[in-house]
Amino acid sequence: MAVFSDLAGFRALLENLPAQDPAALVAARARNSQLTKPQGALGKLEDLAIWYAGWRGDARPLINSPQVIVFAGNHGVAAQGVSAFPPEVTEQMVANFSAGGAAINQLARAAGARLDVHALSLETPTKDFTQEPAMTEQDLTEALVAGWEAVNDTTDLLVTGEMGIGNTTPAAALACALLGGDAAEWTGRGTGVEGDALTNKIRVVAEGVARHQGQGDGIETLRRLGGREIAAMAGAIARARALRIPVILDGFICGAAAACLAHTAPNALDHCIAGHLSAEGGHGRLLDALELDPMLSLGLRLGEGSGGTVAISVLRAAVACHSGMASFAEAGVSDA
Amino acid sequence: MAVFSDLAGFRALLENLPAQDPAALVAARARNSQLTKPQGALGKLEDLAIWYAGWRGDARPLINSPQVIVFAGNHGVAAQGVSAFPPEVTEQMVANFSAGGAAINQLARAAGARLDVHALSLETPTKDFTQEPAMTEQDLTEALVAGWEAVNDTTDLLVTGEMGIGNTTPAAALACALLGGDAAEWTGRGTGVEGDALTNKIRVVAEGVARHQGQGDGIETLRRLGGREIAAMAGAIARARALRIPVILDGFICGAAAACLAHTAPNALDHCIAGHLSAEGGHGRLLDALELDPMLSLGLRLGEGSGGTVAISVLRAAVACHSGMASFAEAGVSDA
Repeated sequence: MAVFSDLAGFRALLENLPAQDPAALVAARARNSQLTKPQGALGKLEDLAIWYAGWRGDARPLINSPQVIVFAGNHGVAAQGVSAFPPEVTEQMVANFSAGGAAINQLARAAGARLDVHALSLETPTKDFTQEPAMTEQDLTEALVAGWEAVNDTTDLLVTGEMGIGNTTPAAALACALLGGDAAEWTGRGTGVEGDALTNKIRVVAEGVARHQGQGDGIETLRRLGGREIAAMAGAIARARALRIPVILDGFICGAAAACLAHTAPNALDHCIAGHLSAEGGHGRLLDALELDPMLSLGLRLGEGSGGTVAISVLRAAVACHSGMASFAEAGVSDA
Repeated sequence: MAVFSDLAGFRALLENLPAQDPAALVAARARNSQLTKPQGALGKLEDLAIWYAGWRGDARPLINSPQVIVFAGNHGVAAQGVSAFPPEVTEQMVANFSAGGAAINQLARAAGARLDVHALSLETPTKDFTQEPAMTEQDLTEALVAGWEAVNDTTDLLVTGEMGIGNTTPAAALACALLGGDAAEWTGRGTGVEGDALTNKIRVVAEGVARHQGQGDGIETLRRLGGREIAAMAGAIARARALRIPVILDGFICGAAAACLAHTAPNALDHCIAGHLSAEGGHGRLLDALELDPMLSLGLRLGEGSGGTVAISVLRAAVACHSGMASFAEAGVSDA
């Protein structure tokens, strides 16, 4: 059961987030310095392993049970023609996930990760945010709870992903409203809109931002401009934090969900790393604003948690090196 | 058994390398365009999967049996103080590989790859190339044959790595001699040399290049400035090509081995991709010269095949998506 039943309860949780285990961090750094490699020769893999160890409270951890959760939602704003695909594709893709035919099915299997899919009231799209807030407080609370409860408490690494036709539009609106700048800077091609359709999408984002910007914190902005799957990702990221489960963020839409948490509680993403830099236009800017350095840059722009899931194997490799390697003394290797 | 017994035989092989299967390429491109994702949404993963399919002659391949081979060699030029570690570390690290304690042991296991280690006449370092050619024709032939024979013919993906104290020095000399520019542009910190030691290392590279540049093709330059483990990597890369096994190149030293092949036969690396951009100074320049775009950039500078092995999981994920996903028609998903 979720430990909150309204938005005030969720905000209170964000005020009291756990931190890394300082003793595990110290021990992990000491271990890293003794392993049979030149100092720093594993580059970012060393930093990632130490960071992971700190969150797990274990100087020599392993990643055994990663979980990928894909949340699906529908968007009232999709009726404004912001996507290259029709809204029924959200539900069709949920069926594709169930049948094992989507990219995320293959990627999760390749990464040795459990995949869970949660379809959130697909029959009831959010409201068109150019006209009114996308969600009621009740809608948002339910979506946050769905995300919170979707995290398996025996998971040792979480990736959150999404499916929702039209959802780069609320993601762009959230990023613009929370981080500033022009709608055009945050609005990308999504599934492939161009020309007049892209101009229209920018207009929709700008109208939403103009109507809802500055009306509250990241959570209130999430209610006004977000969507159920975006909120559920925020709830899952927060639950992972409560459980000290590290999170690999996916792309632009996942990043927008994370930005809502960071805007509400500045340290809320300390347990998160960016799995990749997406090809979606605003993602690099969003990562810069969140001070996140992406692990991979493969030109992905699919969603579904795809980029974060590819990054699981890289983080697992980093942690495997850290925890499995011999020290100079153990191996009888001469130090520099 | 190797199909060559001298350098002329190896050169003849490089003149007659197999190409990708055009029918598999066409079929893989067609398949990719029908999968349940927006066109191009898997970015570089799509290109990688199609490239892999072309080499395997199978429009729907899987990666089941990757092989990582680490070759070890010792270098006469190490006596000139070009490394932060003493030469006996090469043999100590080979023992560490055998005991399972090195980074590559953890990375190969994490990638589901078979790991083979071949120590090449460690008791007999190559000659100091500032004084004479590093290897005789016989030495070089034996090292090429060792690499050639190390490739398992049932492997479906190869990574070649190396261990050899001092070997960023011959790698820099090879790159400089084959690709031009100043020794300082190609000479990096290796295991961690700085200040006067780095200045000395640049001098050693420059002296070797001045003595041996322009004395023959990439194979002759490999004989004069290379080392046994570098030559063995070249032999293994060539064998993989003969078997149409795709190769993920590792870092700077592996790249120098590859450059010797490319200088001898311009299409010799068509079956190779760059696993990562190393932190070793000259690697980016080397990849540019070889027209290779690295999959990852994680600040690694370890060798052992480490970066190439991390990249195995990314390529496997790409191929798993390509071969496992449903088409729009199969999944009943509306196309754009």
